[in-house]
Amino acid sequence: MNYGSSDRILAELRAWIADAPPGAQLPSTRALTAQHAVSPVTVQKALRALASQGLVESRPGVGTFVRSLRTVRPHDYGWQTAALRAPAHPLPSPAAALRTTGNDVIALHSGYPDRELLPERLVHSALVRAARSDAAVSRPPSAGLPELQSWFAGELGAAMPAELSAPTARDVVILPGSQIGLGSLFRSVVGAGRTLLVESPTYWGATLAAAQVGVDLVPIPSGPHGPDPDELDRAFAETGARAFYAQPTFANPTGAHWSPEHAGAVLEIVRSHGAFLIEDDWAHDFAIDADPVPLAALDDSGHVIYLRSLTKSVSPAIRVAALIARGPVKDRILADLQAQIMYVGGTLQAAALDVVSQPGWRTHLRGLRQQLAARRDLLVDAVTQHLPSAHLEAVPRGGLNLWLRLPDDTDLPRLAAACEARGVLIATGDDWFPAEPTGRYVRLNYAGPNPGAFTGAVQIIGDCLTG
Amino acid sequence: MNYGSSDRILAELRAWIADAPPGAQLPSTRALTAQHAVSPVTVQKALRALASQGLVESRPGVGTFVRSLRTVRPHDYGWQTAALRAPAHPLPSPAAALRTTGNDVIALHSGYPDRELLPERLVHSALVRAARSDAAVSRPPSAGLPELQSWFAGELGAAMPAELSAPTARDVVILPGSQIGLGSLFRSVVGAGRTLLVESPTYWGATLAAAQVGVDLVPIPSGPHGPDPDELDRAFAETGARAFYAQPTFANPTGAHWSPEHAGAVLEIVRSHGAFLIEDDWAHDFAIDADPVPLAALDDSGHVIYLRSLTKSVSPAIRVAALIARGPVKDRILADLQAQIMYVGGTLQAAALDVVSQPGWRTHLRGLRQQLAARRDLLVDAVTQHLPSAHLEAVPRGGLNLWLRLPDDTDLPRLAAACEARGVLIATGDDWFPAEPTGRYVRLNYAGPNPGAFTGAVQIIGDCLTG
Repeated sequence: MNYGSSDRILAELRAWIADAPPGAQLPSTRALTAQHAVSPVTVQKALRALASQGLVESRPGVGTFVRSLRTVRPHDYGWQTAALRAPAHPLPSPAAALRTTGNDVIALHSGYPDRELLPERLVHSALVRAARSDAAVSRPPSAGLPELQSWFAGELGAAMPAELSAPTARDVVILPGSQIGLGSLFRSVVGAGRTLLVESPTYWGATLAAAQVGVDLVPIPSGPHGPDPDELDRAFAETGARAFYAQPTFANPTGAHWSPEHAGAVLEIVRSHGAFLIEDDWAHDFAIDADPVPLAALDDSGHVIYLRSLTKSVSPAIRVAALIARGPVKDRILADLQAQIMYVGGTLQAAALDVVSQPGWRTHLRGLRQQLAARRDLLVDAVTQHLPSAHLEAVPRGGLNLWLRLPDDTDLPRLAAACEARGVLIATGDDWFPAEPTGRYVRLNYAGPNPGAFTGAVQIIGDCLTG
Repeated sequence: MNYGSSDRILAELRAWIADAPPGAQLPSTRALTAQHAVSPVTVQKALRALASQGLVESRPGVGTFVRSLRTVRPHDYGWQTAALRAPAHPLPSPAAALRTTGNDVIALHSGYPDRELLPERLVHSALVRAARSDAAVSRPPSAGLPELQSWFAGELGAAMPAELSAPTARDVVILPGSQIGLGSLFRSVVGAGRTLLVESPTYWGATLAAAQVGVDLVPIPSGPHGPDPDELDRAFAETGARAFYAQPTFANPTGAHWSPEHAGAVLEIVRSHGAFLIEDDWAHDFAIDADPVPLAALDDSGHVIYLRSLTKSVSPAIRVAALIARGPVKDRILADLQAQIMYVGGTLQAAALDVVSQPGWRTHLRGLRQQLAARRDLLVDAVTQHLPSAHLEAVPRGGLNLWLRLPDDTDLPRLAAACEARGVLIATGDDWFPAEPTGRYVRLNYAGPNPGAFTGAVQIIGDCLTG
């Protein structure tokens, strides 16, 4: 859309209004269209903008008028303070990782891959096809488009050994992004006032969702190989928790990747406590030099609830994820989700299915793997060279991030501010700890824009750290 | 998408597998493509379907194999019963109004307008433009696309008298449909364990959202002219509630429409109790013979929180709504929403803005008004003629529904089942009562498919009622 002509007419009309008396009638849309040589849509857009700024008012069927002058009074919304009270579950602010930025900074803070890592051509053409199809004007079933449910079930089923029974399309619930799935899972599987075990550090979006639902978190220390099984066993026994939220594959932020033996051991503990493991397979499409198998592929007893999103790997505009759960827990979750979203729009579901069904999707994923490898290695090299005081416990074999421990006397907020002042955005590690951080960490995303600037950015971080 | 060739190859492969020994390798995708004269995509789709049914397993880089036979055992998910416990806030089932149906029934039960009442051409072309734009691969700010925020602010501002200050784009939060907005509002403005006043009857989705959040509902009797102001005043005083949820314009299900005097009186009561009025303007685009002004247009003191959806009037695939709230309450709500959805996909926002910015949108709304009028009158005539024992308290001046009271000895579930057996779906009224129903009601939607069948459908209801 072209906002240029709209901005121009807006500026001219503002000048006209400044000279006009209150109540003066503006020229008709037709007259303005001719006078400014723009389309009626552009004129109406400008008039709406003026109305929303309180400069004109429209009287339908009569015309548009300069608004009467009124005394400017500051609004007093103080009464709301008493009506709202303090929040029952104060929410942490959304992490800096969600922040959108301009092109004038080097963004190592984000949780999203840069657009050059997206299958852009596939996305545009899939959305265009979906836009022209019946999906654009019809309402799909609450649990999702059956063909898309089938695709997700098939993907997980294909990773399962033959002796286990694969999930079916009926075990799949389509979600508008995985964040709402986390909240829904925590509410329906755990419940307010009850306990959920989580890795520490863990994904900040999970901590946020848990705070909103009012779930109590018990953190389990987790290193580059996954959570400590003894600690996990003890925490289940001590708390009576019935659920553990984890990212077994390229965990965010640590990049941790559980070995098959470790995954088996954790699953055994979860089973022995009659509990659920909520597997957030956020980095399924971001493998670099490992071919991970979801933990859910090792389970057909309903203990693993599997969350798989396409938002990050397909497009931030295609907010489509799936939840695969077997047994009555699926009905519990679906009822909770329906109360929040009723259903997921069909256009996005059809487009998502279209993208992942194209031969080009596999080609894209192969190319993505190489790009991520090159970017990761570039950033690791820069860190080794220019951030000698930072400790990288393990080079991640997938995912989007490096997780660096800085010296214990680092003032993280000051470091982040100093870097930002020099045009480099970093994510400080505290957001990923459900309790007090165990060290000073930063998370650097190697999937952001402009990898050519990575080395310079890490130099700047090094300068700010020592300076 | 064409599923025909995929179904065919699927059937043939199933037959092949039935004759093959466990572990046998299937022909390569290339061979299957040639043999069945279909595209590789179709072959892969068929193989995925077979994998999700557990008939074959794919070993990446090696091939696809017939799965080993295994003993069929019924799954035992009984352990989940103890892990899940009984739900803290049992949810009512989503109302029958959400049910999707085939073409072989006359659907008077739905809450959605038929596709012939949608601006289908505008929707397809807006989605195609959005699909081709940058919105398809970028992530908008959490509160929404600024231009769309502006549009919603401008729409409400244009309805405000000049002496009030209009909302700005910053007061607007874009939502992926209004249902999630209801939950978020109830949680952040009211809070679990606290009281929300609602009309009775009221929208079932609001009752559902309140149950999920754990908010206590206090129903205020509401007739064709709106809620009783004395009852409302008394309920605020008695309960200490700080919020009232209402649909002042063509309420669902009753069609009630508050006069300006009534709206002023209610607003005064809300203000005097330092409370919020949550205005759900669901039928903004469904006026028939009234030109309603939102209650929010009478308030610039932050007492009215305004919810406006485009989903029903634009397309069920374009799940876009807005919430306009002024003062600190907006920040409270936005924080809650971010924890659930992070952001709303840009494609749908761009497409929604495109549709409502087209000159064709106004033309569409004018045509829609006439169609709704004709459909409503047709259904009212049919009811008058064939359902003499039903009482229609008021002919709605907008919205999508007739709300009929039936004789007190009507067995509603039996009536609905009898109608369904004869191919007519109706929505029984109990879902709309937050407490015990005060009578036997049905809601008949005059915006559903095939209005030519309305008269026959009402005859069938009449037969079932007397039979």
